[in-house]
Amino acid sequence: MSALVPPRSWVTSANGHLDFALQNLPFGIFRRAASNEAPRVGVAIGDAILDVAACLAAGLFDEQSELTRQAARTCASPALNALMALGADARRALRDAVMALLHEDCAVHRQQIAQHALVPQQDAELFLPAQVGDYTDFYASVHHATNVGAMFRPDNPLLPNYKWVPIGYHGRASSLVVSGTPVRRPNGQRKGPTDDVPTVGPSRSLDYELELGAFVGTGNALGEPIPMASAESHLWGLCLLNDWSARDLQAWEYQPLGPFLAKNFASTISPWVVTLEALAPFRAPLAPRASGDPEPLPYLTDARDATQGGFALTVEVWLRTPRMRDEQAPPVRISQGSALDLYWSFAQMLAHHASSGCNLRPGDLLGSGTISGATPDSRGCLLELTRRGAEPLSLPNGETRGFLLDGDEITMTAYAERDGVGRIGFGRCVGEVRAAPALAGT
Amino acid sequence: MSALVPPRSWVTSANGHLDFALQNLPFGIFRRAASNEAPRVGVAIGDAILDVAACLAAGLFDEQSELTRQAARTCASPALNALMALGADARRALRDAVMALLHEDCAVHRQQIAQHALVPQQDAELFLPAQVGDYTDFYASVHHATNVGAMFRPDNPLLPNYKWVPIGYHGRASSLVVSGTPVRRPNGQRKGPTDDVPTVGPSRSLDYELELGAFVGTGNALGEPIPMASAESHLWGLCLLNDWSARDLQAWEYQPLGPFLAKNFASTISPWVVTLEALAPFRAPLAPRASGDPEPLPYLTDARDATQGGFALTVEVWLRTPRMRDEQAPPVRISQGSALDLYWSFAQMLAHHASSGCNLRPGDLLGSGTISGATPDSRGCLLELTRRGAEPLSLPNGETRGFLLDGDEITMTAYAERDGVGRIGFGRCVGEVRAAPALAGT
Repeated sequence: MSALVPPRSWVTSANGHLDFALQNLPFGIFRRAASNEAPRVGVAIGDAILDVAACLAAGLFDEQSELTRQAARTCASPALNALMALGADARRALRDAVMALLHEDCAVHRQQIAQHALVPQQDAELFLPAQVGDYTDFYASVHHATNVGAMFRPDNPLLPNYKWVPIGYHGRASSLVVSGTPVRRPNGQRKGPTDDVPTVGPSRSLDYELELGAFVGTGNALGEPIPMASAESHLWGLCLLNDWSARDLQAWEYQPLGPFLAKNFASTISPWVVTLEALAPFRAPLAPRASGDPEPLPYLTDARDATQGGFALTVEVWLRTPRMRDEQAPPVRISQGSALDLYWSFAQMLAHHASSGCNLRPGDLLGSGTISGATPDSRGCLLELTRRGAEPLSLPNGETRGFLLDGDEITMTAYAERDGVGRIGFGRCVGEVRAAPALAGT
Repeated sequence: MSALVPPRSWVTSANGHLDFALQNLPFGIFRRAASNEAPRVGVAIGDAILDVAACLAAGLFDEQSELTRQAARTCASPALNALMALGADARRALRDAVMALLHEDCAVHRQQIAQHALVPQQDAELFLPAQVGDYTDFYASVHHATNVGAMFRPDNPLLPNYKWVPIGYHGRASSLVVSGTPVRRPNGQRKGPTDDVPTVGPSRSLDYELELGAFVGTGNALGEPIPMASAESHLWGLCLLNDWSARDLQAWEYQPLGPFLAKNFASTISPWVVTLEALAPFRAPLAPRASGDPEPLPYLTDARDATQGGFALTVEVWLRTPRMRDEQAPPVRISQGSALDLYWSFAQMLAHHASSGCNLRPGDLLGSGTISGATPDSRGCLLELTRRGAEPLSLPNGETRGFLLDGDEITMTAYAERDGVGRIGFGRCVGEVRAAPALAGT
């Protein structure tokens, strides 16, 4: 018998693809670039995108279940919300049908698909995958919370609630942008420890934050909590999230109600939503809690979640400065961590979120918070990597960075690989920093 | 010459109406109760609602400007967002046309309107006036901030940033509900000062917060701040807002990222949006800053705002307990304050919000934060009124309240009156507390 091998596609670029092999099949929203086409649902396969609505129109789902066809009928819309609202069974049904169409064993329709329903990614424009009604950002890495706390509150780095409460806060939905959108440096108030009064101007401490985002599938009614036992069934898929942060604004504004302008100028997400099915082979327990830490309270406890609540994803941040671009040098990796280095699972975050009765809606986005590990090279933001700018990064070309300068480009990636399963990746989450706009009165 | 008198309407219930006289004309979303009608835009007039789309369909705006007709064409939609997006000129044009139709001098169409385009309020179901993309809550009353700060941080009640930064945070949009919607008490973690570990269960310190909400009209592009000089033109109108708060959850969860589950289980708003035109006669400067306080920074300064940035509205909270309802006793007023008791104007909040480049969208909601004045009877929440429950309110029937019990009903009102102008009111913002749902694991 042959060893287990990943499935192969007749879309040859998919086989061995670092991100979008047949076993991944992430969903997104696309159209041909510079066209008047309506944005619609696509599935990434190798270097191409499968147009799901075009497959439906061509009758390629005629033999499928009603659930599959119902799911496919949502794919003419310019956001994944309607598909997400159908829940996990519909996602699985559609994914299975798409996988069958793209599998190397599918001989019948491949000509038709290749001609009418495959768009090269290089010819496509990608959009936000969902219309995000509410965006919530958590703070689920205990290493991040400890490192940051030590800088903002040296006497009190990790607050007493951290190991009991999956700390989170409401973020800004309007300023979520898709990978590739330039990010303007924000203006704002900042007041250094030796300043008498605050000043206003472009942030001097612009940072990125490496996060995963989880999209909500089916929601819950207001006033109806989601128990841990079913929390996972409300998760639809994951993306990369860069929660850009202006540290000088944050330090001055964040008490007592939390970060506001320091975060709401932009948050970038990757265009492809990786489904829980693609991630299933990479489920694992989160890094163990330190000895002496409390067990999660019962409403945050689930046996399955305890053993496979995490995602064994490698997450990376890459920096390219304007000089590197001028010199045609490639981006340099500045951190590498693991998505298992979280103290709370997404299921716990979701169950906690709904425990108050708060209603989650299809397409809502939950951010993990900055993913930092125990080692210095796994710190997920410059605030931690450079100790608030005091120990700047040294780049191979001799440049240094304490925080981001205009023109700097940050790229985030995530991937997982296993023998027999193959590799899946998230694609890229990219943003380039642009100069701050003029602000009247400054 | 006769003294200036308020305009009169042929809708006789409007004349002398405490809320909805002809000089008010607030906008909302309605349909006939228990009907299959599509929700649509209405204007409150006396005890009735004018169906704007029905007026348009009947040709009553045929003689009006294209801008008026464009505005009226948005009124078949189930939310005010499209009308809000048209901005201040369109709002004024439509309001003027509606006022002309309802004025006692309008003889021609009144029969037609009364028959086909007026719905009694008692027969109507009211909805959220807008689809709120993002809800932001500010903290603009210095009295509230000081009173609350003294309880949560006795050594440090008013933080150093307060008088420089219009402090705000992102709230939860999904759980905004319209007046009349019951509110379920949230479950959550709480840990008293003498508790070893947190416990989970229904909040024991459920509170209301008396606020005004401001709807955004035209928005701004991401990365493009809104200068103070034009901030007011982005404000569309005001409503009442009850930012229900679970104080025990809040105390345990709020550091370092701000309130989360303590607030996101429900926020109630009144159904009628009172326009800036109706409010124009009641513009006034905010209460003066204390001597020694800093002037607002230039990006938050505007000459017109300094003299009329506030709204001279009386704001009230009324409580009715289940026993009072059983005894058919009327609600009792438990506080009365002024919307001039804010440290920051809505224009300042809006300009600050956009100063980072954050994009505001039509229909976004900005909450003022709890409106408390300097006197004990003007404190806008129970936390302040009862000093965290330590000094319970004594009600006329002998009951007491530290925080809200199940079955308690909170009603908020706002109004203004001036000789020659008459009186306008906001209607009511009502919510009754229901028992907490079951929470698995508790």
